[in-house]
Amino acid sequence: MLDKKHIDELKKIVGEEDIKTDKIHLRAYSYDATKEHYYPEAVVFPKDEEEVSKILKYCNDNKIAVIPRGAGSGFTGGALPVNGGIILAVEKYMNKILEIDEKDMVAVVQPGVVNAHLQKAVEEKGLFYPPDPASMDYSTIGGNVSENAGGMRAAKYGITKDYVMSLKAVLPNGDIIRAGKRTIKDVAGYNVAGILIASEGTLAVITEITLKLLPKPKMKKTYMGIFENVEDAMNAVYKSLASGAMPVAMEFMDSLVVKALREKLGVNLPDWAGALLIGDVDGNVEEEINYQLGILEKSFKENGCKEFKVARDENEANEIWYARRNASQSITIYGSKKINEDISVPRSKLPDALRVITQIGEKYGLVVPCFGHAGDGNIHVNVMVDGSNEEEVKKGYEAVEEIFKAVVDMGGTLSGEHGIGLSKAPFMKIAFSEAELNLFKRIKEAFDPNGILNPGKMGL
Amino acid sequence: MLDKKHIDELKKIVGEEDIKTDKIHLRAYSYDATKEHYYPEAVVFPKDEEEVSKILKYCNDNKIAVIPRGAGSGFTGGALPVNGGIILAVEKYMNKILEIDEKDMVAVVQPGVVNAHLQKAVEEKGLFYPPDPASMDYSTIGGNVSENAGGMRAAKYGITKDYVMSLKAVLPNGDIIRAGKRTIKDVAGYNVAGILIASEGTLAVITEITLKLLPKPKMKKTYMGIFENVEDAMNAVYKSLASGAMPVAMEFMDSLVVKALREKLGVNLPDWAGALLIGDVDGNVEEEINYQLGILEKSFKENGCKEFKVARDENEANEIWYARRNASQSITIYGSKKINEDISVPRSKLPDALRVITQIGEKYGLVVPCFGHAGDGNIHVNVMVDGSNEEEVKKGYEAVEEIFKAVVDMGGTLSGEHGIGLSKAPFMKIAFSEAELNLFKRIKEAFDPNGILNPGKMGL
Repeated sequence: MLDKKHIDELKKIVGEEDIKTDKIHLRAYSYDATKEHYYPEAVVFPKDEEEVSKILKYCNDNKIAVIPRGAGSGFTGGALPVNGGIILAVEKYMNKILEIDEKDMVAVVQPGVVNAHLQKAVEEKGLFYPPDPASMDYSTIGGNVSENAGGMRAAKYGITKDYVMSLKAVLPNGDIIRAGKRTIKDVAGYNVAGILIASEGTLAVITEITLKLLPKPKMKKTYMGIFENVEDAMNAVYKSLASGAMPVAMEFMDSLVVKALREKLGVNLPDWAGALLIGDVDGNVEEEINYQLGILEKSFKENGCKEFKVARDENEANEIWYARRNASQSITIYGSKKINEDISVPRSKLPDALRVITQIGEKYGLVVPCFGHAGDGNIHVNVMVDGSNEEEVKKGYEAVEEIFKAVVDMGGTLSGEHGIGLSKAPFMKIAFSEAELNLFKRIKEAFDPNGILNPGKMGL
Repeated sequence: MLDKKHIDELKKIVGEEDIKTDKIHLRAYSYDATKEHYYPEAVVFPKDEEEVSKILKYCNDNKIAVIPRGAGSGFTGGALPVNGGIILAVEKYMNKILEIDEKDMVAVVQPGVVNAHLQKAVEEKGLFYPPDPASMDYSTIGGNVSENAGGMRAAKYGITKDYVMSLKAVLPNGDIIRAGKRTIKDVAGYNVAGILIASEGTLAVITEITLKLLPKPKMKKTYMGIFENVEDAMNAVYKSLASGAMPVAMEFMDSLVVKALREKLGVNLPDWAGALLIGDVDGNVEEEINYQLGILEKSFKENGCKEFKVARDENEANEIWYARRNASQSITIYGSKKINEDISVPRSKLPDALRVITQIGEKYGLVVPCFGHAGDGNIHVNVMVDGSNEEEVKKGYEAVEEIFKAVVDMGGTLSGEHGIGLSKAPFMKIAFSEAELNLFKRIKEAFDPNGILNPGKMGL
């Protein structure tokens, strides 16, 4: 319990104005994109690394839980204070782009910088920061690093971890550390940055992030392949990539999504359309773009693609992307509650994975529309239920558990992007052995012996 | 001390034939590329993961040091048994390419597979494994992962860590774990693979490695820029890359190397040549190659390049590469002993770094020829001394320490590729704070509480 003495001590660190305990603040910081609510005992807004260090040291000495929080846009409850304690909110002050260095092609940012703001700032300088989670308009780089966020461009450009060169972070005991360097290569010491990425705020509080940037490719084009059925599309994904295509993105929508897009949003697609693959290809010269499109068209058509379109201008590109961007909201026609998972499998297992997911849905009498980042094997699986029907919600979660088991059996993972947090913690035993879970616990203890950082997450 | 009882117990695990304690074996496994000698008490050749697990469990229970070893080609003594114990040699049995999966574009290998063997095997299938350390003809993938090996192609394609999807490993207590998945995205659990990479055999014994492969680019061309002086060349490195060039490699040789190449090997270079930048550009279409070469030529010439050549055929390409491939052996004209370091700095600091290195050399009256992977900021700094002159060798190491300090001051690292091992352990305090070193120790303890794995390395 956080008593008045603790509040007073924290006030000494951040000042009267930057610790909040009123109901409105506690409510505002009680939820994230899971829509579950857990109330913190206080919300603290540190101004800099020094304050973060003092807060952590105090909380560590007094065994007060600290939950670091960016935009609170996570899908697995990573920023929820399940055991009370304080929310350490970085979005108020620690939200600055400190540097965009065109010479070294790096950006240095504070954790509260919104992904899209960084994208825009670097693109103005002819540079490129590829990771583009769907939440990019509001999610923060600190959160992106903590969850190792992906996005559509992962098929060609990889994910957040591929762009983190160096981190500054504060350990629970208040120690300020730097992990990694502003160099392409660095093999001195343990790769601490590597383990802080995706650690969901359970090991340290990240206070500064140095990111690798790329030159922005000169041009891109948008393609769409329309298939009669999911299996053809899933075969086309891995076969086209194995043929040497490197599209920026290869996004998938299944027949339920196609139906929803048509019925809810009036998207114009052929009657026979049972699956879509869409994406961009990019490059510096027209010929490279055409080379890529050539591989895609040939390979798609060899795998049952009935229509392959390339957008002739930006309007047509936007039309194609409209379908993908609205996939998530269109499927609400299937149920008031969406149990939204983000499994990932080796690409060649996509046909099996989609077949098994449909079968599990049928077994439970539920529809499971799927869409997502097929180009990297990461699919958003949406088990649709009537949220007011307790029995059906329960069945939904049973179906999810069965899906996880099947996915892990085929060499896949519980989460490609969203992390474990609270929502997937019960499933950690499906994915990890006793020995692996024990090792996670020992790593946690090495960083956070008192267990103050984001307790109750990741099944730890 | 390893007594007869221990030997007998280990024999029960691996069989009579696969543990050696004779002088010849102990000598054969007493050294690596540092040419220093430390004798193990036994050399053990496990046949598989199960045997590795039993060996580690036994040694952990009995506090016997275990030093995992691939080819022993490391430059920092990572495979040297400084405190005795057993060498765990994977090159005899655990040397198989288990799978090259063209559908998922991954390779699964045992740690003892030689890098070049893997390269060849995947290229025969039209695939590409980019990391190409200079030792690739004999160094093993297990060693490459343990040191996070780089290579020339890092400028465009990154380093070993960028290709490791998943590892199997055995912890000191005998637990067999899998870290990571055969999926592009995986954010479930801590990134244990991330911390095992570059951990120099101090945390676990890697028994299986799953690597990401790329489609092999269809074509490449070789370029060479000849500069009058090092500063121009160093400016050209970061400015050409900041202009959007993405060459596969951008290798540098300074004026001392140029002189040595001319005098020792008769390489035909202009009299005025004071620095070289050479490399390949690759792509799938001619136009992309020309686009890349165009940026390089323009930017090089804007920064003082007097001659820019593009090889017209393979012979000319080999001629250009001959200079770089023989840089290391040519500089032996400057001294019988080469103190060979591999610092890495942010690319825009290369002009400063090279200037300071030369100054430090002058201060100590030593020549310091430099060459290496300028495209990623990683330079091989060779402090040349007369190995029979104890005084000069001592001065050489003092110069090295001063170089490390200067490099770290400019945001660089002690090692871009070679690791810390034994040789750089004394310099860890230059690069890391007390808090960071303490964290390394706690991480070490989390994996290896008895400290049996590769003791005495990394300053731990």
